[in-house]
Amino acid sequence: MNPGDRVRVERAGVTNEGVLMPSSTPDHLVVKLDGGYNVGIAREDADVDVLESDAHDVEAAQSESAESEIAFDEDLPTVSLISTGGTIASTVDYRTGAVTAQFDAEDVLRAVPDLAGRANYRGRVVTNILSENMTPAVWKELAEAVAEEIRAGADGVVVMHGTDTMQFSASALSYMLDTPVPIVFTGSQRSADRPSSDNVMNAVCAVEAAKADAAEVLVCMHASTSDDACALHRGTRVRKNHTSRRDAFETVGAEPLGRVEYDTETVEFRRDYAERGAVDLDVGLELNENVDLLKFTPGFDTERYAELLRSADLDGLVVEGTGLGHVHTDLIPVLEDLVDDGVVVAMTSQCLEGRVCDRVYDTGRDLLDAGVVEAGDTLPGTAKVKLMWALANRDDPAEAMRRSVAGELQERSVPWT
Amino acid sequence: MNPGDRVRVERAGVTNEGVLMPSSTPDHLVVKLDGGYNVGIAREDADVDVLESDAHDVEAAQSESAESEIAFDEDLPTVSLISTGGTIASTVDYRTGAVTAQFDAEDVLRAVPDLAGRANYRGRVVTNILSENMTPAVWKELAEAVAEEIRAGADGVVVMHGTDTMQFSASALSYMLDTPVPIVFTGSQRSADRPSSDNVMNAVCAVEAAKADAAEVLVCMHASTSDDACALHRGTRVRKNHTSRRDAFETVGAEPLGRVEYDTETVEFRRDYAERGAVDLDVGLELNENVDLLKFTPGFDTERYAELLRSADLDGLVVEGTGLGHVHTDLIPVLEDLVDDGVVVAMTSQCLEGRVCDRVYDTGRDLLDAGVVEAGDTLPGTAKVKLMWALANRDDPAEAMRRSVAGELQERSVPWT
Repeated sequence: MNPGDRVRVERAGVTNEGVLMPSSTPDHLVVKLDGGYNVGIAREDADVDVLESDAHDVEAAQSESAESEIAFDEDLPTVSLISTGGTIASTVDYRTGAVTAQFDAEDVLRAVPDLAGRANYRGRVVTNILSENMTPAVWKELAEAVAEEIRAGADGVVVMHGTDTMQFSASALSYMLDTPVPIVFTGSQRSADRPSSDNVMNAVCAVEAAKADAAEVLVCMHASTSDDACALHRGTRVRKNHTSRRDAFETVGAEPLGRVEYDTETVEFRRDYAERGAVDLDVGLELNENVDLLKFTPGFDTERYAELLRSADLDGLVVEGTGLGHVHTDLIPVLEDLVDDGVVVAMTSQCLEGRVCDRVYDTGRDLLDAGVVEAGDTLPGTAKVKLMWALANRDDPAEAMRRSVAGELQERSVPWT
Repeated sequence: MNPGDRVRVERAGVTNEGVLMPSSTPDHLVVKLDGGYNVGIAREDADVDVLESDAHDVEAAQSESAESEIAFDEDLPTVSLISTGGTIASTVDYRTGAVTAQFDAEDVLRAVPDLAGRANYRGRVVTNILSENMTPAVWKELAEAVAEEIRAGADGVVVMHGTDTMQFSASALSYMLDTPVPIVFTGSQRSADRPSSDNVMNAVCAVEAAKADAAEVLVCMHASTSDDACALHRGTRVRKNHTSRRDAFETVGAEPLGRVEYDTETVEFRRDYAERGAVDLDVGLELNENVDLLKFTPGFDTERYAELLRSADLDGLVVEGTGLGHVHTDLIPVLEDLVDDGVVVAMTSQCLEGRVCDRVYDTGRDLLDAGVVEAGDTLPGTAKVKLMWALANRDDPAEAMRRSVAGELQERSVPWT
């Protein structure tokens, strides 16, 4: 029995006939039915008859499957799976021994037979890149693709994305889209060929979240090192806080918005969220990419950067300052010159937790006098994305940086919590 | 009874006579004895006789006290208190309503009467700046001052430091000094005029740590939001992870090295540490300041930075990459050019937790091929300081970045923990 064979599989009283496809898990057979639908069948207790050996060209069947429509079950919601690449859509490249992204959305269905029966799926590939290569241009393509899927009737969208910059793309879509349905980013910290891979559970939980009620841009990844649940994080408050752990993603400064139990398939929310259908779909693709993020640390060469910043002709600058939002005193006049030239300069903190407050110390007060805007407790990376959006979409982008637009800034009057 | 009065104070059978000094706490009187020693006396049950009103100029007495020798108790260890400024040495500036640094080390003794009786103190002011204004030049002055105090017989050194960049200064001293005694950084997240100030407990715990056995550069700050204990963090693994909380400082990727119980004054260590007296004092003040830290995030303008990096004539560059240590593919040739020009380029991760591993994905392998050095799980800020030191002190600074020098890099073969 090999991929390409025509087989008949009987299990638990159900018979499926079609072409055996490669499966990424030893526990499941994947059979491509004549209608083009890939079905995953548990190998245990399954009876397989090989009807014809090597009956089909698997590669052709796979490429065909990439364009095929999936059998529609009107009792199930429709979830669009959008692939952008990354580990969740990758296998080991035996040429280099490393992992490259090379799957499309239909392949994910094949790789994760557990997704079958949970929804009607629409598959779509926006790009196929490791997420360190994500750019604002791709965010726009992705936002457009998500919007098209929602217009086409998707009840929820799952975005498969590399984990390196998932939080930035999730932030970008949080600002670019008003959404009546959930948009759930998921990915994988360990590729499918590893026994500890998190790709199946994350994908399954993301689909369950896409069927649930929170019509927000969410990130769905392992909640702990166990395989029992995924956490649902608001796209603008989440951060990859570990290079390799499966539970690397954390909501900063708050509890995650919700949780998906893997076994029971229940989705719970712990805080208020935007409800499904509460807003109409709205898309704003404009971003001003002329924004930089500057991290200040001791030994910072003010002269070198003064030159860079003056010649860069920026429209926005996010500063990742120290503590409550500080930089060396020598840098303040440089920032003041930028503000005087019309650049929006927003202050965040490299502490990551807690809010910026520039009213406490001399340095901070000098920064405020220079026209630097406090971004509250907005994460530095989120602030960069937000500023790109605010410059292109708001009359007063500086004021926008002080207020929450997509849950990125928790309103509190007192910095001492 | 006012500051400047000559007073006699009797309490619990002990009589002290001298000049009443301003006290920052309502619970304590501070009396400057004729020998120049400031003694703190609990106000409760104290009998005070004013011997002469307005007998002394308090300002003169304070400046005199800055130079005074403190009464020596040969049964107690000697701890040097070195002040660099920051909140722990500050009071509210009523002119601006903000907090400015304006105290010296002797003033800290006056502000924290609880320090009395724990050690013989030597006081010293290296500088008086908010720590966002710290520079490598001040690190050198500080390292020299610490070394002088150790040569003069200090059994331990406490460095009072602003919290914004304390982790950078602690890292710098970790590399610049081989120390036979504890060097304990402490500071304050809330100034002394606030009811929630942490300055007293942090200072007391730091002195206790300076008397203990771990001859390392440590950071001593609140372990939790309670006033029960301080955590002792290794200088190269600690990070200020919150803008305002008193327990903002955390050891990244490990448990803190130890803990000081405030009530019982006990110091406990949970992991191996360098023992008191195990090494002789050695000081290396050379740093190569021609090092930059570059944080890569999506939307990074490679062209702009390529120009900056090429013209900057750097000797070292620490990259704060994404995930396991990645940047956009377009940036890799720019880094390769730098390496070819002799710049040491070290990769760290903005995830902060977990180690860099560039053998897994194409991008990482390309970075290794370009000659970029993996800095393991060294924190990006620590890596910047370490590279300044390695370039000036090691024949093969690139190799030094791969190995632990001062506990900054936890050796582990597998990135998937």
